[in-house]
Amino acid sequence: MTAAPAHASAQTTPDAALVLGFDADDTLWHNETLFAAAHAKFHALLASHHDPDTVERALYATELRNLPLYGYGAKGFTLSAIETAIELTEGRVSARELRELIALGRDILAHPVELLEAVPDTLAALAAAGHRMLLITKGDLRHQERKIEASGLASHFLAAEVVSEKDEATYARLLRRHEVAPARFLMVGNSLRSDIAPVLRLGGLAAHIPYPLTWEHEKLAELPQAPGRFFTLNSIRELPALVARLGG
Amino acid sequence: MTAAPAHASAQTTPDAALVLGFDADDTLWHNETLFAAAHAKFHALLASHHDPDTVERALYATELRNLPLYGYGAKGFTLSAIETAIELTEGRVSARELRELIALGRDILAHPVELLEAVPDTLAALAAAGHRMLLITKGDLRHQERKIEASGLASHFLAAEVVSEKDEATYARLLRRHEVAPARFLMVGNSLRSDIAPVLRLGGLAAHIPYPLTWEHEKLAELPQAPGRFFTLNSIRELPALVARLGG
Repeated sequence: MTAAPAHASAQTTPDAALVLGFDADDTLWHNETLFAAAHAKFHALLASHHDPDTVERALYATELRNLPLYGYGAKGFTLSAIETAIELTEGRVSARELRELIALGRDILAHPVELLEAVPDTLAALAAAGHRMLLITKGDLRHQERKIEASGLASHFLAAEVVSEKDEATYARLLRRHEVAPARFLMVGNSLRSDIAPVLRLGGLAAHIPYPLTWEHEKLAELPQAPGRFFTLNSIRELPALVARLGG
Repeated sequence: MTAAPAHASAQTTPDAALVLGFDADDTLWHNETLFAAAHAKFHALLASHHDPDTVERALYATELRNLPLYGYGAKGFTLSAIETAIELTEGRVSARELRELIALGRDILAHPVELLEAVPDTLAALAAAGHRMLLITKGDLRHQERKIEASGLASHFLAAEVVSEKDEATYARLLRRHEVAPARFLMVGNSLRSDIAPVLRLGGLAAHIPYPLTWEHEKLAELPQAPGRFFTLNSIRELPALVARLGG
């Protein structure tokens, strides 16, 4: 497959059509809201020991320290929360409170998938128009697979790829696997760090759809220069028009 | 690709050559020994409360109950161990002991990869002979990826697939993805339940290399009938001869 110029449109061969990549958490369905609720409960649990800011900073430090071993997801979050609770209370956290932490993690894992507005219709329309689409998500493997299954969206995707990190190397590997030229790949997601920057660095296109909440780790101060390849949308509703404009 | 008869050998076209699938934990490198050591420490930790058999039964029950949400791997094991310790001590487990449990899990995740005997030479020889090989492993995504990287074996494999369950549906999906006919696929592994039975049921071939330890969950009372398609080896050393005999 070779990259087609952006002005090719109706006459584009199937090979040169834009391939669309979609992030899942906070792009197709709600996720960070669940973590935010769990954090709030965690703050409340330790409120007699420390103020919320101190608790939040300690938890984030533990999560970052554990990230290389645990990776992303609710299981690592739960283990880091337990560790932080023991540290911050100098071992005085009660078994009942620790049980609540385990339950917090399990609630995230067991929570039903809540799709974002307009997601099913938009994906169905893009699929009906013949677009090849990939789902690319990071986190706990089992949890992500269960959410993909429960979302009812799986059939729209050529493949659903659960990865441990969304960096340039990962995207390069996935584009090779699916024989997609970076210049004909448009990634859609809410995280500048994980969905947008690495794809732009590879020479791809990226559409950012901000979600009201962003985990500290997913924030990014600066994007790579990518004139004509970076777009911001208010909603996934605006995606089909963008794809059409890009000669999708 | 179509299935070639088993007697096709030297004249076999590349497409009809056997494709080899390899399990990783306890097939290429030691794993269950690490979990067994962690279980022994867990028993010791709770020895003042319950005998090892009671502790082991309770832990296994917790792990099975949590499996649908947690999936396989060391993070789920750690969370289940913490939950079991709180239950079995009726909340009297100390923070120091819980810290030790977290450390147990982290030790498994951080442990260096210890390859089984003859693994590097055998894989190198099979790769040099031109065999297409897949690595198919289940567990924590990040942990498995780190082990694959650390093993130094990654370059021998066409792909390394980390899956959340090794059942017929998973193997069928992977064989489709890599365009392998089941009848020309030989899976090599230590688990009758995860590596052998589902592949035989799909019409594939399977070589069982028992490992000295087997987790209760991976045991299997009965294999599907598969005359001429199931083999038991004492060591991976015996694999090249089997592959040659099967017209690899």
